[in-house]
Amino acid sequence: MHELVEGLFVEHFGNPMLDRLEDQAVFEVSNGRGPARLAFTTDSYVVTPLFFSGGDIGRLAVNGTINDIAMSGAEPLYLSAGFILEEGFAIADLKRIVESMRVAADDAGVQIVTGDTKVVEKGTADKLFINTAGIGVIHDALSFSASNARAGDKVIVSGNIGDHGTTIMVARGELELETDIESDTAPLHTLVKDMIDEAQRLGSADAIRSLRDPTRGGVATTLNEIASSSDVCIEIHEDTLPVREEVQGACEILGLDPLYVANEGKLIAIVAAGVADAVVARMRENKYGKDSVVIGEVRADPAGIVCMRTAFGGTRIVDMLTGEQLPRIC
Amino acid sequence: MHELVEGLFVEHFGNPMLDRLEDQAVFEVSNGRGPARLAFTTDSYVVTPLFFSGGDIGRLAVNGTINDIAMSGAEPLYLSAGFILEEGFAIADLKRIVESMRVAADDAGVQIVTGDTKVVEKGTADKLFINTAGIGVIHDALSFSASNARAGDKVIVSGNIGDHGTTIMVARGELELETDIESDTAPLHTLVKDMIDEAQRLGSADAIRSLRDPTRGGVATTLNEIASSSDVCIEIHEDTLPVREEVQGACEILGLDPLYVANEGKLIAIVAAGVADAVVARMRENKYGKDSVVIGEVRADPAGIVCMRTAFGGTRIVDMLTGEQLPRIC
Repeated sequence: MHELVEGLFVEHFGNPMLDRLEDQAVFEVSNGRGPARLAFTTDSYVVTPLFFSGGDIGRLAVNGTINDIAMSGAEPLYLSAGFILEEGFAIADLKRIVESMRVAADDAGVQIVTGDTKVVEKGTADKLFINTAGIGVIHDALSFSASNARAGDKVIVSGNIGDHGTTIMVARGELELETDIESDTAPLHTLVKDMIDEAQRLGSADAIRSLRDPTRGGVATTLNEIASSSDVCIEIHEDTLPVREEVQGACEILGLDPLYVANEGKLIAIVAAGVADAVVARMRENKYGKDSVVIGEVRADPAGIVCMRTAFGGTRIVDMLTGEQLPRIC
Repeated sequence: MHELVEGLFVEHFGNPMLDRLEDQAVFEVSNGRGPARLAFTTDSYVVTPLFFSGGDIGRLAVNGTINDIAMSGAEPLYLSAGFILEEGFAIADLKRIVESMRVAADDAGVQIVTGDTKVVEKGTADKLFINTAGIGVIHDALSFSASNARAGDKVIVSGNIGDHGTTIMVARGELELETDIESDTAPLHTLVKDMIDEAQRLGSADAIRSLRDPTRGGVATTLNEIASSSDVCIEIHEDTLPVREEVQGACEILGLDPLYVANEGKLIAIVAAGVADAVVARMRENKYGKDSVVIGEVRADPAGIVCMRTAFGGTRIVDMLTGEQLPRIC
C-alpha cells in the first residue's frame, strides 16, 4: 500500500527534489539581497465530502496553504503533503485527488517537494485526511498584521462571500437543494502581489495594513480578530456585502449567515483610505479579485467591536461566532 | 474547543512567532554566507497507544521530524504542528502531549512556530493524529544521499536496534509481557553534527556518504534502500548487531525480527573506511551515540542486495519486508 501510494505521488508530483526519494527536500532560498525572510505555515484538511462542486480535498489543501503563505505577502514556493489514509480507501479516488493537487500546484507555480503517508485500520479515520505545510519567501520589507488596522482605513473583500461553506453544506445532501453554487477555492498570491505592486506604485508600501483569508468562521470571525488585535472598531455596510443570490438563498434554507460561512478563495484587506480605491481597481484586473469591493471602514470606537449598518439604516453588532462552528468544512 | 486548544498551544509552545497568532510564522534564515540552503520535511504520527514506555505521540512527532531534517546534515530550526482530534478526546491527555512536545522541542533547541487544529466527530479519527513539518538550515556544502555508498565503505549504527517498535507492540498488551524495554525516541542532530565535525577534522568532509534513520521497516529496510539506490551490496555481521537482550526476547515471543522493527532514535551511516573508527569513537562521546558500532561494509557485488554473515558462519539475504509492516508504529 505504501509503495503503491509513493509511486502515485512520484508519478503525479514528480520533480527533482521529490524524485530523489530522500526523507527531506533540500533547496536554496534567496531574496536576492541578504538573508531570506521566510513564511512557514501548516493546515490539516478533513473536509467531508472529499469531492464537491468546484473542487476536492486535494485542491483545497494546496490552495489553502498557499493562501496562508500569501497573506504574509510572501511568494509561496514549496509545499509538503502528509496523507492519512483509511485502509480500503479507493485508489481511484486517491489518484483523482493527487492529480488535482498536481494541477493546483502547477496552476499556482508551487512545488510539492516532500511527503509522507500513513495508513490506519478501517474505522480509525474517515477515508482521507491531508496535511500540507508550506514555505514562501518574502521579497519586500512587508509586515502585514491583524494588529495594524488604524482608524480611517478601509475594509476590502476580494469577492463574493460564503461560496465554499455553503457548497459543502449543500454537498452533504442533508437538504435536497439543486443549486449551481460552487466552492471558491483558489490561490490568492498573484492577487496579493498585484495589491503590493499597486501600493508601492503609489509610494505607500505600508498602506496595506492587514491581509487575512476568511476561512473557518468566515468574514465575521476574521473582522473580529482584526478589530480585537488592533483595538479598533470595524464598521461594515450590509448593502455593500457581495453575496451571490444562490448562496443567500441556500443559506436562508440551511439556517446559515454568509458572514460566518467559510471562504477558500477570498481575502480581507485593511488598506489606508487614500489608496483603497486604486487598490480595488487593480484587484479587479486579477481573475481572483474581479468582484473586489470596499465593504466598510475602521473607526476608533467602540474598540474591539465589529458592527454592521443594516440595509434599513440600523446598526447591529457582528459578534464572534458562539457555539458550534460548521464541522469539517475544510 | 478550538479556542481551548489554541490557548493550550500558546501556553505551552509560546514564542514570539507563535504568540503573534497570525496564520503563518515569519523568520529569517541565513547560513552566514550567500543564499541559505534549507531542508524541509513532514511526517504524520498515528501511533497507538498514544502513551508508551519512554515517550508519547508528541515527543515522537517532534523528534521524528527533527531526525528527518538532521539526516540531511541540516540544523533543525522550526517546526509546525497540525493536530487532528477526535471529538471528546480528553483535554488532560492533550495537555500532557502538548507539554511533552514543548519539552522535546526545548531539549532539541527547536521552536514550534505555527500550527493548526481540526476536530472531527467521534468515530471518524482514533483519538489524536499529529503532523509535524520542519525546516532546517544546511551550513556546509554537504550532500548525503542514499545513492552515495561505495564499495569499501563501512556501515555504522548508532546503538541498539528494535527498541521503539518492540515497545509499541508490548504496550498494545496483546501479549502480557512484563519488560523494562522503552522507546529510543531521541533527537539526533547533535550526533550528526559531531560526525560531520569529526569528518571535517580529518580532512574528509565527504567521507560521510549516507545518513538515514531506520524508522518504519527498521534497519533491514533502510539498508535495502541504500543498497538499491547506490547499486551496491551491503554485508552486515550478525554478531556485531547491537540488540538488547530484553528486546531480542520480546521479539522472539512476538514473532518479530529486530532488523525489521522501527527505531526512533538511531541512525545508519555509510562512512568511508579510513575514517569509520574515528567517527564511531566520536559518536560514542554523544549520549545518543554511546553504543555506536560498525555492523558491516559495502561491497560491489551482488549489487542491490543486503546480506548477513550469520553467527554460525553462513550468509543469508536480508530482503525488503514483504507483506504487512507493523501498523501505526509511529
